[in-house]
Amino acid sequence: MTMATLRTPCHPLALLACLLVAGCVSTPGRAKPDESGAAGNLMAGFLVVDGVYNTELMAPYDVLEHANHHLPTGRGVEVFTVSPDGNEIVTAEGLRLVPDYSFATAPPIDVLIVPSARGSREEDLRDGDLVDWVRARGERAQYVMSLCWGAFLLAEAGLLDGYASTTFPADYARFARTYPHLDVRFNVSFVHDGGRLTSQGGARSYEVAMYLVDLLFGEETAISVGSGLLIPWPPEPKDRPAILSRPRSTRPY
Amino acid sequence: MTMATLRTPCHPLALLACLLVAGCVSTPGRAKPDESGAAGNLMAGFLVVDGVYNTELMAPYDVLEHANHHLPTGRGVEVFTVSPDGNEIVTAEGLRLVPDYSFATAPPIDVLIVPSARGSREEDLRDGDLVDWVRARGERAQYVMSLCWGAFLLAEAGLLDGYASTTFPADYARFARTYPHLDVRFNVSFVHDGGRLTSQGGARSYEVAMYLVDLLFGEETAISVGSGLLIPWPPEPKDRPAILSRPRSTRPY
Repeated sequence: MTMATLRTPCHPLALLACLLVAGCVSTPGRAKPDESGAAGNLMAGFLVVDGVYNTELMAPYDVLEHANHHLPTGRGVEVFTVSPDGNEIVTAEGLRLVPDYSFATAPPIDVLIVPSARGSREEDLRDGDLVDWVRARGERAQYVMSLCWGAFLLAEAGLLDGYASTTFPADYARFARTYPHLDVRFNVSFVHDGGRLTSQGGARSYEVAMYLVDLLFGEETAISVGSGLLIPWPPEPKDRPAILSRPRSTRPY
Repeated sequence: MTMATLRTPCHPLALLACLLVAGCVSTPGRAKPDESGAAGNLMAGFLVVDGVYNTELMAPYDVLEHANHHLPTGRGVEVFTVSPDGNEIVTAEGLRLVPDYSFATAPPIDVLIVPSARGSREEDLRDGDLVDWVRARGERAQYVMSLCWGAFLLAEAGLLDGYASTTFPADYARFARTYPHLDVRFNVSFVHDGGRLTSQGGARSYEVAMYLVDLLFGEETAISVGSGLLIPWPPEPKDRPAILSRPRSTRPY
C-alpha cells in the first residue's frame, strides 16, 4: 500500500478523504483488536521524565483520552505514562506525577508521544538509555509524536531521518544546526509525515493531537472531542499542518 | 478605592489602561511582599480532588507558573496544589498526582483556582468540608478563578453571589437553573467581575489565566508568557471577556 509522496502541504481533510478512498486509513468507531493493545485498544504511551512540561504532556494526553468518551462503541485509546525507572517525577512547572510504568514494565506502544522536557535539547540527548528506549519503541510504533523540544529526542534517536519535521519556533535554527541532515519545516503548527507527527508545542500541542484523532477515528469524533475541550474543529486554514503523505502502516486503526 | 460599576463588556486592555490610570492596578515587575507569600510571592493555590480535569488544572497552572520566568526580577508567583487530605489523587483522565498540601496544611492563598472535576456538578457540591474550605479560602483570597464546572463549586460556596459569572457552555442552563439568583453570562470565554474570574474551561482555560497575568504583571509579561506557550496575546476580539469592574482589593500586586 504505497502512495506517491506529496511534497505540497494540502488540506488535512482533503488528504484524509484521499487516504480513505485509497483504503490507507480506516475510521472505526473503536480501535480494532490487534496484537498489542490489551483489550484491542490503541496503546498511547507518553514519555515522562523529570522536567517534562505540563502542557506538552497534558494537551495530547487529554485529546487522546477524551476520544474514548466520543466513540460510538466505547473505549478505543489506552493512555499511559512511562518514566525511565517508574518512580515519581516532577514536571518543569513543579507538579508531582506518579508514572504508570517504567521502561522495563511498559506495555507495547502503538502511539509514542514525546513531550518536551527541560533537558530535551541538552542533557537528555546524552542519556543513552533514554535515547535507546525512544528509538526502540519509536521504531515499532505506528505513530511517533513530539511536542516542542521533544523533536530533539526523536532526531537524536534517528526517528526523524528521512522525514520532514518541526519543533518549537524559537529553536528552529538550533534544531536545524544540530541535525543538519533533517528536513525541518518552519511556521506550521505541526508536520505530519507518514508515521511522524511533530508539533511546535505549547498550547498548539492540542492541534496535532486533534488531527491524529481525526485521522484515526474520523472527523465526527474529532468534532465531538473538540466540543468537550472547547477546541474548534476542523482547524482554521492558518493552523493546518504541513502534511506529507508517505507509505503508512496498514495496522487497522 | 471604588470605581463605578460598569455593566457593559469592554476591551480588556482599555479597561486595564483605565484601572492603571485610576491607580487601581499596579504592574510591578515582581509581586511585592505582603503578609501572605512566604517570600513575597503571589500565592496561587489550585484545588485538586479525585476526578479533576487535566486541562482545567494545567492551563492556568502553567500560565501562572511561567510568569515567573518572564518577570524582570525573578520569581513572583508560587503555584501549588491542595487536596482535601493531601494524598495522591487521580485525575479524570487517569494521571496520578501528588498534591503539595492538604486543607489542613495549605499556606495562605492569594489566588484560589478551582478547576472542574468529575463531581463538580453533583457529589462534590454535597461535600460539606470541601464547600466550606472553598468558601473560607475564597473569601480571603484576592482573586478566585474557576474553570468549566468549577463555577458550580464557587456558586455552592456563595462566592459568586453578587457577581457575574460563566461556566462550561453545555451546562449554562443547568447552572442558571441550579443557582437562579446568579447573573450568568453566556458565550464569552470568561467573565471577570472584581475578585471573581470564571472561565468556560477546556482549552480556553489558558485565556483567563493569560488575562490575569496581564492584569497582575502587565501586558509585556503576558506577551512573553504567550510567546513561550504559543498563545497569541492580546486576544482576538471574539475571545475577549465580559469584564465588569468592581471595587478591588488594594493589595499591591
